[in-house]
Amino acid sequence: MSGRRAIRLGMVGGGEGAFIGAVHRLAARMDGEFELVAGALSATPVKAKRSAAAIGLARSYADFRDMARDESARPDGIEAVAIVTPNHLHAPVARAFLAAGIHTICDKPLTATLAQARSLAAAARKSTAIFALTHNYTGYPLVRHARAMVAAGALGRLRVVQVEYTQDWLATRLEATGQKQAAWRTDPQRAGLGGALGDIGTHAFNLATYVSGLGVEALAADLSSFVPGRKLDDDARILLRLSGGARGMLWASQVAVGRENGLTLRLYGTKAGLEWRQEHPNHLTFTPLGEAPRTIARGSATTGPAAARVTRLPAGHPEGYLEAFANLYTEIARAIRARQAGKRVPRDVEFPGLEDGLAGMRFVATAVASSRAGGRWRKLAGPV
Amino acid sequence: MSGRRAIRLGMVGGGEGAFIGAVHRLAARMDGEFELVAGALSATPVKAKRSAAAIGLARSYADFRDMARDESARPDGIEAVAIVTPNHLHAPVARAFLAAGIHTICDKPLTATLAQARSLAAAARKSTAIFALTHNYTGYPLVRHARAMVAAGALGRLRVVQVEYTQDWLATRLEATGQKQAAWRTDPQRAGLGGALGDIGTHAFNLATYVSGLGVEALAADLSSFVPGRKLDDDARILLRLSGGARGMLWASQVAVGRENGLTLRLYGTKAGLEWRQEHPNHLTFTPLGEAPRTIARGSATTGPAAARVTRLPAGHPEGYLEAFANLYTEIARAIRARQAGKRVPRDVEFPGLEDGLAGMRFVATAVASSRAGGRWRKLAGPV
Amino acid sequence: MSGRRAIRLGMVGGGEGAFIGAVHRLAARMDGEFELVAGALSATPVKAKRSAAAIGLARSYADFRDMARDESARPDGIEAVAIVTPNHLHAPVARAFLAAGIHTICDKPLTATLAQARSLAAAARKSTAIFALTHNYTGYPLVRHARAMVAAGALGRLRVVQVEYTQDWLATRLEATGQKQAAWRTDPQRAGLGGALGDIGTHAFNLATYVSGLGVEALAADLSSFVPGRKLDDDARILLRLSGGARGMLWASQVAVGRENGLTLRLYGTKAGLEWRQEHPNHLTFTPLGEAPRTIARGSATTGPAAARVTRLPAGHPEGYLEAFANLYTEIARAIRARQAGKRVPRDVEFPGLEDGLAGMRFVATAVASSRAGGRWRKLAGPV
Amino acid sequence: MSGRRAIRLGMVGGGEGAFIGAVHRLAARMDGEFELVAGALSATPVKAKRSAAAIGLARSYADFRDMARDESARPDGIEAVAIVTPNHLHAPVARAFLAAGIHTICDKPLTATLAQARSLAAAARKSTAIFALTHNYTGYPLVRHARAMVAAGALGRLRVVQVEYTQDWLATRLEATGQKQAAWRTDPQRAGLGGALGDIGTHAFNLATYVSGLGVEALAADLSSFVPGRKLDDDARILLRLSGGARGMLWASQVAVGRENGLTLRLYGTKAGLEWRQEHPNHLTFTPLGEAPRTIARGSATTGPAAARVTRLPAGHPEGYLEAFANLYTEIARAIRARQAGKRVPRDVEFPGLEDGLAGMRFVATAVASSRAGGRWRKLAGPV
Repeated sequence: MSGRRAIRLGMVGGGEGAFIGAVHRLAARMDGEFELVAGALSATPVKAKRSAAAIGLARSYADFRDMARDESARPDGIEAVAIVTPNHLHAPVARAFLAAGIHTICDKPLTATLAQARSLAAAARKSTAIFALTHNYTGYPLVRHARAMVAAGALGRLRVVQVEYTQDWLATRLEATGQKQAAWRTDPQRAGLGGALGDIGTHAFNLATYVSGLGVEALAADLSSFVPGRKLDDDARILLRLSGGARGMLWASQVAVGRENGLTLRLYGTKAGLEWRQEHPNHLTFTPLGEAPRTIARGSATTGPAAARVTRLPAGHPEGYLEAFANLYTEIARAIRARQAGKRVPRDVEFPGLEDGLAGMRFVATAVASSRAGGRWRKLAGPV
Repeated sequence: MSGRRAIRLGMVGGGEGAFIGAVHRLAARMDGEFELVAGALSATPVKAKRSAAAIGLARSYADFRDMARDESARPDGIEAVAIVTPNHLHAPVARAFLAAGIHTICDKPLTATLAQARSLAAAARKSTAIFALTHNYTGYPLVRHARAMVAAGALGRLRVVQVEYTQDWLATRLEATGQKQAAWRTDPQRAGLGGALGDIGTHAFNLATYVSGLGVEALAADLSSFVPGRKLDDDARILLRLSGGARGMLWASQVAVGRENGLTLRLYGTKAGLEWRQEHPNHLTFTPLGEAPRTIARGSATTGPAAARVTRLPAGHPEGYLEAFANLYTEIARAIRARQAGKRVPRDVEFPGLEDGLAGMRFVATAVASSRAGGRWRKLAGPV
Repeated sequence: MSGRRAIRLGMVGGGEGAFIGAVHRLAARMDGEFELVAGALSATPVKAKRSAAAIGLARSYADFRDMARDESARPDGIEAVAIVTPNHLHAPVARAFLAAGIHTICDKPLTATLAQARSLAAAARKSTAIFALTHNYTGYPLVRHARAMVAAGALGRLRVVQVEYTQDWLATRLEATGQKQAAWRTDPQRAGLGGALGDIGTHAFNLATYVSGLGVEALAADLSSFVPGRKLDDDARILLRLSGGARGMLWASQVAVGRENGLTLRLYGTKAGLEWRQEHPNHLTFTPLGEAPRTIARGSATTGPAAARVTRLPAGHPEGYLEAFANLYTEIARAIRARQAGKRVPRDVEFPGLEDGLAGMRFVATAVASSRAGGRWRKLAGPV
Repeated sequence: MSGRRAIRLGMVGGGEGAFIGAVHRLAARMDGEFELVAGALSATPVKAKRSAAAIGLARSYADFRDMARDESARPDGIEAVAIVTPNHLHAPVARAFLAAGIHTICDKPLTATLAQARSLAAAARKSTAIFALTHNYTGYPLVRHARAMVAAGALGRLRVVQVEYTQDWLATRLEATGQKQAAWRTDPQRAGLGGALGDIGTHAFNLATYVSGLGVEALAADLSSFVPGRKLDDDARILLRLSGGARGMLWASQVAVGRENGLTLRLYGTKAGLEWRQEHPNHLTFTPLGEAPRTIARGSATTGPAAARVTRLPAGHPEGYLEAFANLYTEIARAIRARQAGKRVPRDVEFPGLEDGLAGMRFVATAVASSRAGGRWRKLAGPV
């Protein structure tokens, strides 16, 4: 808690039956940097109202456009908005708030389609407001330390990047049961081009490029829809060619029975290897060539400033997913406060934004195209 | 966030250089149940003021007695207080607030001495206010599930209880460097009878008795002060005889080089074994006799209601120490709200209190007595 | 030890500086089924002699052809031969012994080239002798149990097969230092088409198909030679399409710094997942959908007859690589004894043979072709 | 395989239904150093004969005394004998062979009683033959490396020694079912003073003192017989005071449901900690103060000569229990060959012997006495 006034936050989406909305609220509140004061929690007015009441929200809107307009007009209106809707609404909602000069914190992936991504990018570039994308795994202290190690050359020149994100919650046709999360994530109209690819593949892609510092130049994808009747992929395996000659693999699956949130990154360079597992995020395995592998613990003397900045507890007292998510919110708060004070955003503030979102959408679109072309290699198009 | 008004919280201790104060503040805030509004963060007035300003605290006091008196007189005064001072102040501070009818949340161990524990117990029994003791590890979802499994007979009759809590931060004479945490924890005047024994041994004792549902009837202790010049134990190994014929061992060490917060509980009954490690708190190993060991994951379909009540995230998205700590605060909030509404505290609300604190103090005093008597077996005295 | 006379064994290759020869000798001896009596341990006569003396070998030959001829003529001549030369010699050596009616135990991969594989296959089909290929990982008890579980439907219909074999011993240009193992394995003349692909990729391929019971129908490969100056691949990543609609990935690398012999197989079906790691071969993780993951231990009550047959020790006393290797030798001995007795080989005797070797060579050749074609998907040709 | 003639070995015990006899046979054979030629495999003549036939043994005796006499008289008689009987027979059998000048390899514990130990010690001291005791865990390469690290001061001055050996096979009254292993191990007449204490507690004691290089000066023991009707302890927990001021705990249990052969040693010194687990014997965790924990792998560049001497395979290809056991046999063979050649036993040859066995017996006797005295501290008597 900084001791300063909390930033007034609004939320679009995140009503009854939602998952990620509650995570955003908790993350925003954890360090006392944000205070949630307004919301359009559901597109269904009665559900919006009920959801708002359930969490004691001061101002509830039935329509996000009204919210953007009214809040920007109030002296005590929201300063930032969190967008936690299904993917297809990210672009229109974000555009509305960006146009109103309200800082925008958007869940991933950026949008449902590349066309939407382009329109949102144009809007974001015109706006004075900050645009942040919650690729929340970049908020883990040891992910930041891993990135710093790679950047400092601890691994030498990177050769291999292996990343995977595996789950099993869509191993059966859950969407047919009315489960809300499954329903929209398997619906091309709401989820967009990618299924597992968009939902968790973009996280894996983001993590791999964030930590490695490399771009993906080309890929060959083999997407599957294993569950009968499913329209989008529930399993994606992709070969990667990265900048600097590195090669890699990305596997995203929502049918890997027994896996929960198995996001794992492994990097191998000329001098060392590095491994991080989201399910055990407080330790990083560092394997210098010819030496004994080392276990680097979050909060210990063996991590550096990039991790220390976003660490709350000493080693051995585990931090988790919510702390990592909150780190992004707290970083975003620092950026907002700098803007509000007319200052530059401090150099060490770090959170994913528009370019990360665009890269993710190019990745999804290219992977879908490659797979449709029988798994042919495809270059990732340049900046949109 | 419940949607209800946050409970007004005060804090005594937790100023500059403190560790656990910040943890309490974050835990109190996490679910939006408490709002910190007043504090006597340090016994040194200038530090109290500076510490209060640093965290944006509305009302700062130089003396906890003034705080108890003034806050209880204000219509918007604190409803609860968190005591995060060194051990020797727990009793006087708690007595002041309990006398003022303010709900009291006290860090462990209960007090520095058995005499203090008795005086505090008397005060707590006379007060209408709630007294809670933050043996925070009982807030972990899988600790609760483990307790529920034992209670339901999943392990059969318990035979063996092995518990340990190992750290290494006092492996050298850190107290001689001026490090504040080390200084008071190794000082008999402020820490009390036990060193490692009081600081982390009481956690281990509490966890073992909480999960097993057994009491410790007798013990034989061998306490050591390995670091030259240290007055209190920094390593305690204790044989236990528990109710129902079970036997056990407790090891607490702050000189186990390489261990961070190695709190581990292992239970073995006639039908199954169970193991939980605080450093990997999201999994529990259950080993039924003659069957394949099972890994029970927090947030999965394989845990029951005791865990589910205090779970925020699905399996695979790790929760940690802060979430567990916050669970205690949120449970305490439920109890306070029930009291304020003139209702009984719901039966499923659960947090450690006075009796747990007294048991811990008896454990410390008995272990010290046993060790001083050359490791002789000593019965734990009955209720104080 | 069966109590029967040991089978007389010869060896070709495995002299000074070799690795796998000593492994074969130990594996052959472990259960007392074979007695090594003759060898052509090196193509260099003086080294052959010196190597034979060093291990106390009765009869030493400078040329494998002489050995095949002379031994088959002796009444006490070898009954079986182990071929542990570099790959390019497998075919000529095996042909010589098969032609002499001597049972042949050949290290993998089958040959250096597809043409050699075809010639060896023809010879093997004509011979009355047994031909065994030491894909030794199939000798691990839990690999056999995994196969039995899949075959029994414990995983349901297989969807995903992920296999990898990672090492780091070729992360630098070791072949330039004169290290014998590295020298021939990176030399296309001696190793053949594949580098990492042939050396360990074939093991991964064999393990995946053995346990899954599925064939690979098509693949897309991306092979790299990361170490400058290296002529063969040192890293291979391959997308797989398997029979029955399953998909998979195979990654073989000898430049994954920090990995030792990271052979890992993960299978995911409609009903459960299964994971086995060669570096921790005594446990298998079984994850039925919606249930707690189970750890199946070798030698425990939770494995079945397929594992029990090749298990020497109870759970908790680890068996390793040599025991698994010895299991193949002991299975082969049972087959040889059956043949010698004019009986059918018992149905439960199991070891890899000619067809497995041919499949491995088709896999290597197809992967190389795919990679040379820019990573295009290629079907695996049918039987050679 | 050394290339030299195998040493002729006899065996007493190890017939039908035995466990450890087959382990000794395999261990003796693994490196080709011993050839089993004679045995008195059972005290029941018909079983002795049948057992000998089953393993193809040349010479079978019904009585070990006949065997000692006849074999020592033959020119091709056994040079060494392995004693794998129940404990109460160790002393008489060993005395017979030692008196005949035959090198004696005896399973642990040394004897059933202290009186027997004394008589055996006297006999061994008079004999020219070598006496070896198979505390086989000292044969693990990383146990030897751990000992070397401690001796070289890598841990600084030792403070804490924690050792445990846990199993669950006696969690029920298995001895009542006629299971042979359970029957004698729970019978005071055959097992001696200790149950779990003698069977596995002596292993834990030996391992702890071997690696730490410290002696146990005093102990306080709490022994339990949890299974109704059992006469000997099935669970032993013991506080230790070691030489040099170190303290420790030893826990041996055969009722720890879910544990297989959980022999674990943890050492903590002023400079570092060290942990080794028998169930994962190929890795050692080394934790230098203030540095990242390191995983030392058997067969890697990070182990030294003490481990390398007894290592067969490179890191990542796991070795196990049998290899460790074989290492003792091979060390013993080196000693025997040196004696036979009239040379001194090489300094680097290492295996447990008489003194280790006596120390183990003193440990058992003292622990039983302490427990009977209500857990009082007892000094370990000096040399017998």
